[in-house]
Formats: sequence, C-alpha cells, structure tokens
Amino acid sequence: MEAAQDTRAPWRVALGNIIFNADTPAGRVFDLGLIVAIFVSVLTVMLDSVAGVRLRYGPLLNDLELVLTALFTVEYLLRLISARQASHYARSFFGVVDLLSILPGYLALLLPAAQFLLIVRVLRLLRIFRIFKLVRFLSEANILQQAIQASLAKITVFVATVLTLVTIIGALMYVIEGPQNGFTSIPTSIYWAIVTLTTVGYGDIAPKTGLGKGLASLAMILGYGIIAVPTGIVTVGIANAQRAQAQAQNIPTTDLFPSRTCPRCGLRGHTPDARYCSRCGERLPELAAPVRP
Amino acid sequence: MEAAQDTRAPWRVALGNIIFNADTPAGRVFDLGLIVAIFVSVLTVMLDSVAGVRLRYGPLLNDLELVLTALFTVEYLLRLISARQASHYARSFFGVVDLLSILPGYLALLLPAAQFLLIVRVLRLLRIFRIFKLVRFLSEANILQQAIQASLAKITVFVATVLTLVTIIGALMYVIEGPQNGFTSIPTSIYWAIVTLTTVGYGDIAPKTGLGKGLASLAMILGYGIIAVPTGIVTVGIANAQRAQAQAQNIPTTDLFPSRTCPRCGLRGHTPDARYCSRCGERLPELAAPVRP
Amino acid sequence: MEAAQDTRAPWRVALGNIIFNADTPAGRVFDLGLIVAIFVSVLTVMLDSVAGVRLRYGPLLNDLELVLTALFTVEYLLRLISARQASHYARSFFGVVDLLSILPGYLALLLPAAQFLLIVRVLRLLRIFRIFKLVRFLSEANILQQAIQASLAKITVFVATVLTLVTIIGALMYVIEGPQNGFTSIPTSIYWAIVTLTTVGYGDIAPKTGLGKGLASLAMILGYGIIAVPTGIVTVGIANAQRAQAQAQNIPTTDLFPSRTCPRCGLRGHTPDARYCSRCGERLPELAAPVRP
Amino acid sequence: MEAAQDTRAPWRVALGNIIFNADTPAGRVFDLGLIVAIFVSVLTVMLDSVAGVRLRYGPLLNDLELVLTALFTVEYLLRLISARQASHYARSFFGVVDLLSILPGYLALLLPAAQFLLIVRVLRLLRIFRIFKLVRFLSEANILQQAIQASLAKITVFVATVLTLVTIIGALMYVIEGPQNGFTSIPTSIYWAIVTLTTVGYGDIAPKTGLGKGLASLAMILGYGIIAVPTGIVTVGIANAQRAQAQAQNIPTTDLFPSRTCPRCGLRGHTPDARYCSRCGERLPELAAPVRP
Repeated sequence: MEAAQDTRAPWRVALGNIIFNADTPAGRVFDLGLIVAIFVSVLTVMLDSVAGVRLRYGPLLNDLELVLTALFTVEYLLRLISARQASHYARSFFGVVDLLSILPGYLALLLPAAQFLLIVRVLRLLRIFRIFKLVRFLSEANILQQAIQASLAKITVFVATVLTLVTIIGALMYVIEGPQNGFTSIPTSIYWAIVTLTTVGYGDIAPKTGLGKGLASLAMILGYGIIAVPTGIVTVGIANAQRAQAQAQNIPTTDLFPSRTCPRCGLRGHTPDARYCSRCGERLPELAAPVRP
Repeated sequence: MEAAQDTRAPWRVALGNIIFNADTPAGRVFDLGLIVAIFVSVLTVMLDSVAGVRLRYGPLLNDLELVLTALFTVEYLLRLISARQASHYARSFFGVVDLLSILPGYLALLLPAAQFLLIVRVLRLLRIFRIFKLVRFLSEANILQQAIQASLAKITVFVATVLTLVTIIGALMYVIEGPQNGFTSIPTSIYWAIVTLTTVGYGDIAPKTGLGKGLASLAMILGYGIIAVPTGIVTVGIANAQRAQAQAQNIPTTDLFPSRTCPRCGLRGHTPDARYCSRCGERLPELAAPVRP
Repeated sequence: MEAAQDTRAPWRVALGNIIFNADTPAGRVFDLGLIVAIFVSVLTVMLDSVAGVRLRYGPLLNDLELVLTALFTVEYLLRLISARQASHYARSFFGVVDLLSILPGYLALLLPAAQFLLIVRVLRLLRIFRIFKLVRFLSEANILQQAIQASLAKITVFVATVLTLVTIIGALMYVIEGPQNGFTSIPTSIYWAIVTLTTVGYGDIAPKTGLGKGLASLAMILGYGIIAVPTGIVTVGIANAQRAQAQAQNIPTTDLFPSRTCPRCGLRGHTPDARYCSRCGERLPELAAPVRP
Repeated sequence: MEAAQDTRAPWRVALGNIIFNADTPAGRVFDLGLIVAIFVSVLTVMLDSVAGVRLRYGPLLNDLELVLTALFTVEYLLRLISARQASHYARSFFGVVDLLSILPGYLALLLPAAQFLLIVRVLRLLRIFRIFKLVRFLSEANILQQAIQASLAKITVFVATVLTLVTIIGALMYVIEGPQNGFTSIPTSIYWAIVTLTTVGYGDIAPKTGLGKGLASLAMILGYGIIAVPTGIVTVGIANAQRAQAQAQNIPTTDLFPSRTCPRCGLRGHTPDARYCSRCGERLPELAAPVRP
C-alpha cells in the first residue's frame, strides 16, 4: 500500500490516532469504551425480544437504544472526519458495517409496522461484527485463517461429498419410510439426513421401519466416521501454518515451548526445574517465560 | 493404457474434444451447461416430491423433466458417437451412470403404477453422481482418496470394533431395560446403541431404569472418546499423503506455505512483510503468491 | 515362550494345524466355516428376540441353535484334543470364551424359567468375541492398540476430568432446575450432564429455566471443545506408533506411500505417472504397488 | 521458591511428611484413605438427593456425613499444625478448597431451612476437587495442561467466532420461525443455535418452516465442520508439548516407543522380536520394556 501525502489538519491526525490506532493509551480507552457500547447494544436487542422483559422495561430499552444510536452516529461521523481518506473508509468492509449498525436505529423511528420493526431490530445485531475489527491483527487468528484457507479446496471437496451423500440417503429414506412416517418429501428427508449425518439428532423425525432403522444406522456410523476427514484436513493445515510461521521467525518448532540452553557449552533441552547444565555444570539462567503459571 | 490407433473422422474428434475434454473453451462451456442441467434436474425431482408444489406445478415439472431427459439422451448419443471407442465408454462407470440417468425418464412414461413411479422418479437423483466425473482430476480429491485408502485397513478394524461394541451394549440394554421401556428386541436395542455411541441421540428410545442410565452413560463416554480413533487415523493419513505429494514434487513441506529466500545468500524464512534479507541486507523480491488475500 | 517337547500323536499334530493355524489351506477353510457359524449363531439370537419372528420361526430358530451348539461343542472338544497342552488352551482367554459360548446352549435346555432364559440366550452373543481371535495378528490392529496403550495415562486423566465436570455441572443443574423440571436427583442430573457434554442430546430431560439453559449452553460448548483433547492424544499416539513401526522396519515414513526411485542415479520422489527419471533420463520401472486402483 | 528456615518441631515435620508427601509409605496410605473418604462423601451427597433412598436411609446418610465432616475437620487441623507455614497453606488454592469442603457440614447443622439446605448439601460436592491435588504431579497431566495453555489464545479466537455465529444464526431463526414455532425470544433462539451447532440436538425446539430447516441444515453442517478447528489446535499443541518434553529429556521422539539398538555397530530400529542385529549379526539384548503386555 503506497503511503499517500497526508493532507489532514493536525487535530484530525490526533483524532485519527485515537479512533483508528489501538496502540496509544487514548486509543485503547476509546476501543474499550466502544466494545462496552457494542455489548450493551447487543444485550439490549436480545432482552427486547423477551416478552416479559419488554413488557416491564420496554421504554427503558428504547431510550437506551436511542442513546446508543446517537453515540454510534457521532462515532461514525468522527471516523469520517479523521480518516486519512474519508471515501476509502466509507467503502471499506468495516466502514459499511459501521454504517449498517446505525441505520436500523433510524429506520425503527420511521417504520411503525410491527413486522418490519422486528427485522430492523434484529439488524442491529450486525454490530457484533464490529468486534472483529478489533481482533484482526492477532497472529493467532492469522494462523487459523491461513490453515483454513490452505485447506479450503479439500474442505470444499468434502462438503460436496457430504451434500451428495445426504441427497442419496434422504431420497432412499423417502422411498423406504414414506410420508406416513414423517418423511413427507425429499427435501424433508434430506433435512433428516443432515440432522443424522452431522450427529445432531433432534428426533423430530425418526425412522420407524426396520429397513429405515438399518439405513439410518449406516448413515450414523458414516457420519461418525467421516467427521475425521475435515478434522484431519484442518489439523494438518494448522500444523503446516504454525511450522511456516515458526520458520519465518527462525524459531525451531520445538522451541515453541521454552526449553533451556546452557550459556557456556550450548547444550539445549534442560528441564524447567534444572539449575545447572547437565554436561558442564554451568549455572543456568532463570527461566524468562515460566512454563507453569 | 496403450494408445490405440485413432480411426475417428475429424468431426468426431472435434466433437469428442468438446464433450470429453474440459481444457478447451468449448469443452468448458459444455461442462458448465451440463452441470446446470443436472442441478435443475435434481431440483425438479426434489420439488416434485413436495405435495404442495406438485399440486400447483406438477405439469410444469413433468414437462421440464421430459425436456431434460431428451437433452440427456442427445448428450448420451453424442458421447457414444464421438468416443474413441463407443463400447469402452458404454461399459465404463460413468457411461453406466449416464445411461441410468436417462432410463427413469422413459420408464416413467411406460409405468403408470404409483408405487413404482415413486422409485423410478427417485432413481433420477442418480444423476448427481455425474457431477463427480467433473471433479475426479482434482489433486485435492486425490490426496483425500489416498489418505482414506491408506487408512482403510485401520478404519475397518475400528468399524468392526464399534459393531461388536454396539451388539454387546445393545444386548445388555435389552436384558436391563426390556420391551416395557422401548427396547423391544435386540436389533432395536442395537439401533439404540448405534444412535447413542455415534452421539446422534434421537431420544425416540431412552433408558428409564437407573442401571440402564448407568450403562448408557458408559456407552456415551465411550462413543465420545473413541471418535478420536478414526480422526487420528485419517489425520495421520492426510499428513503422510500430503508429505508424499510434496516430496514427489521436490517441495519441502514447510514451503507449502510461501516463505521467502534471499537471492544473494540463500537465507530462507523471511516474514511476508520483510523487505531486506536479515543476514546480508539484499533487497528481497516481491512475494509471487501473497499469503494474505 | 519356551518350546516344550511336543508329545502329541501325528494325527493330533495334523488336526492342530487345521484348527489353530490359519496359514494352511485347510486351516483357512476351517476358520471361514467357523466365522460363518458364529455369524449365523449371532443372527439367530438377534432374530429370536424380535416378537414377530419368534412367533413364526421360533421352533426353527431353536433347532438351528441346537445344531450350532452341537457344532461348537465338537469344535471345543477337537481343540482340547489337538492342543499342544489342553490345560493351557482351556485356561487361555479365548479358551474360556469358547467354553462360555457353548454353556448357554445347554443351560437353555435345563432352565425353563423365562427370566433366566432371556439372559442365557443373550449370553450366546459372547460368541462374537471369538471373531477377534482371528484378527489379533493384524499389524493394523497392533498399531491402534499400541497408540491407545501409549495414550492410556493421558486418556485416564481426561476421563477423570470429564467425570468431575459432569458431577459439578449435574449438581448445579439439580439446584437450578430442581425435580419439577425433570432433574429429579443428582445422579439423574449427572446422567443429563453426560448426555449433554458428550453431545448425544436425547432431549428426554432438558433445561426449562433461563439460568438452566445458560449453564446447559456452557456445558455444550465445553463438551464441543474438549472432544479435541482425546482426539489430539490419540492422533499423536497413532503418528508415533506408525513412525516407530516404520523405523523398526527401516522404512522412511514418507515411503508409506509408494514414491519411485531411479535405478541408475537413485533420485527419489518421481510422480506415479512418470516414465523417465527427471535427472538422468533412465527408464523407470513399473509401479509395483499402484497408488490408484 | 526460596527455602525458608524450617522452625517446626520434629514431630510436626514427621506429621507433615505423612500428610503432604505422597512418596513415603505412610503418606501413600494416608492419601489412599483420604481418596476413599472423599469418594464415600461424594456418593453420600448423590444418594441423599434420590427421593427413594433418602426416605429409607436418610438418618444413616446424615450420620455418615457427620462422621466424615468430623474426619475432614481433624485432617484440616492436622494440615494447619504440620504445614511448614500454616498461613501459606490456609491461603493456597487447595487450602481454601479443604476449608470449603468442611463448612457445609456445619452449616447444615445450623440452617434448618429446606431451600438453603439443598444448596449447602450440594456444596459438599466441592470435595471432589480435592482429588486433583493428588494428581497434579503427573507428567501426563502436565503435557495436557501445557498443550491447552499453549493453544489458549487460538481457542479463545475460536470460541469468540462460535459465539458470534450462534448469535447471528439465533437472531435469524427468531425472525424466520418466530414465537409460534417455539423460538420465543432471541436468547432462546441462541440457546437453540448452541444446541444445534454443537451437534447436541435435544429436539425440544426444532424448526418447522422450510426456510428454517434450510438455515438449520446450514448451521449443522457448519457445526459438524468447524469442530475440526479446536481439534486441530489441540492436536498440534499436544504434539509440540510431547516433542518439547521428549527433547528436554534428550529422548528422540521416535524412542517414545521402544526400538532396539545394536550394542556393537549402533544400528537402531530392530523389530521387537529380532534376536540378532540385521547389519553385523551381534546378539541383541533382551527388551527392557516389552511393547506388548
């Protein structure tokens, strides 16, 4: 990314450092306040959907929502003002999420119709995605993301196989059990096959005939066994991603766990509770990062 | 496979390139059209089984089915004509699947009996297998296939152990709970044991007595624990298959994730955002395949 | 095991070779016949427990059972006669299983009481363990056994942790939900906790209060997450066991999958479809064990 | 930890060796007796909650509880007396657990109110945590603990993702299915989403509409697939922890399984049943630790 000429006034730069930069003390306080506001907002939406709570605290929750919407509006405007390039921020993924998090608050004031109001209210839950903006720099999240990306092609092949399996098993059960046993159509039977193969097992639909139970048993053992495939894919993916990251930082993989090296003779692998080198007797340094908390 | 003398007329060779070869532009368009037709056909069968949809759109779905059957028939004939050896194609796995995908369309016209009609209609879902013909060359699918093949003996031992366990557990529950609590026979009790051990847990049959609940708890913890066995088998299998493939291509495993090498001193393992070699200071080349999208 | 002086008559040695040795053609036929007899016997016990089948085919199943008991008796006597040391065989694990497989057949004739008869009949299912005698030499089974044995201490720690967790969670739910919501006692609540933590989820008992649902959600996410622990243990165990076996046979791990070596320059890692060495151009030998079937 | 000047009288040192040190014969007997007492106490609490048992054996269980409380009180006082530093023990984690295990016994005598009595009784189950004091030195438990600690950051990212997913899926289902189909509020819908995503599947709430079943299917396949992520994380963690421990003890990982080395030429990797070195013909020593029990 080429660094463009920064033409912002000094106060806008200072504001931007607080709002966009989590590494300054003021920025950290701002981020923490934002996270609290988001959680309160999400909790408000949830509680508002519980009939008993809405009856008693409905007006209070509405007021809280208005205040939060105002807060998020101010925050959005501040972001627009202090961003290096306002249009760049407004069109970015998190810029759109930030805007979408405010709109329902205003739509709720304009639309009094109950049906739409429900959807609009739930839309406010999109604010939860804003939390992710604050964790995207974590290296742990990067390793997981890399592992999943590297495994994506294999996982797609696996999901396609599972979808084919549930289609065939569902269609067979539709023929075997039929509408009189709850398998009312092929889509419903496929739904049952997914419930069974993924080992969820609601029990709202269950085979009644002997042949149906036999096929269901087969589907269960199959589902129980093939869960191994995505697990194997992702495990190998994580192992590779971690090894690549360790190599990129010139750290041997086995040093991901602290092991101790003698400062005189260089012998490695002393136990965490060793005090002297087992080869030359040199006093070992204290553990910098203790293994046990 | 020895390459036989190709005796086809030029137009048959050109046709064969479109139909059998996905690497030409025309072939890719043909394959895409085919996939769309297959999905439409599978969707037609599914929707046709939903009572409400059949009542309203039954005739439309029937017409669509006739058109698709005609299309698949033309495609099958074109394959027979343009194949290097028609008999070779006709007897191959996918040749048989292609034929079986057409037949139900004609059987449905000949057989008016409702019971058979249902089975015949569902048979059309076999067309879904045709999708696999188009993915069999994926190297990802090959790694998964190799890993599963290499693990097959171990998985068979595992499945045999599971079947023995559910037989013994099922028989014990039949004695403990008995027909009055829903465990009406040993096969039914084995069905319950499979539902429990695979952690599906429909709840259509559940232990009522204290002793039964105790044995069921044991079966659940067992099932929860031994899922680890196939997972371990397949994970090790995938790791080996991937390592073998990487080795066969002379790529070190750790290079499955791009890490950068200094062009002057050869030091490897620079981080993706490094600009200069950490040993000799040489300018590093840009990343060919960036890690982050 | 010290080889004792063999004092058996020649015909006893020949008989012993057929009965105890699966490597001779006659021994293989004997083993196959035995497996079929065991499966028929197990199927007889299962079908006999289905009310509808017993009503119609009860006498036939009884006769079949008598014939099979007679057969297994003759086989047991032959084993006693032809064994190198009859007492050694009789006291071995499989000798005891063989005896236990016959006794129920005779007990059923002696005991006419219905209640005991049921247990005696089910005891015949123990014959299924005899199958394992025939697979114990499989090296695949050995790797799994070694991996599980090497992981036993870790798995015990894990199971102890799980049992503590379900006790605490069960007791908490008993206090939160109470008998009025189906959590009638602490053992019942612990049973529910096991059903939930292992992700079986029958649904015969389910939390009704908000607090109960919250704790249940926690237990589910916990159970969903800690399944990773035994899986990780066993996976690492299998990887080690396989590596140890490969090393014991002087095979590099990556050669568990056939990769091809040039007979002239020794370059390894040619792809399965390569015809010539990529370094020296030597014609490569055909694949001994083809990767794709 | 700096060793402070030990000012205890000799009899207090001897008592402390029995109570705190599991390595002496007397200490082992003491620990074993303690474990039995804890298990009896936990069993008493459980049985006391079963209505039928309390009716018949209530007074007996109460007496047993009094005796056990007296025993644990004596043990706690002995620990305070014999500890090197009484205040250090009293404020340690297990010191607090030991105290909390006694208090409910006395509270039950003072508080006759039924509601509180229940909670007080269940509090006695905290004694189960005392078992862990006796296993904390196991190296197996240490490997698991290290693996989980090293994976904690990744697991936190994973759990946060799962919580976001169930919030979004739950809110969508609340809009799609609504209160008339059992999805009475967003928290209830999130509870359903957790039950579904973790593959528990009680079936107390299940989607009724087609769109709801479609979204539920998606959630199930997602939950079935992403279980792979924590499993992969922990597996790699355990592999690293075990490798680090093996390295810290200068044992090559492959020697975690005994393989045999020739005493003359040093060739490693002989099979467990080999008698002579495969390279130089030297007689191999007997296996010190046999692989098969």
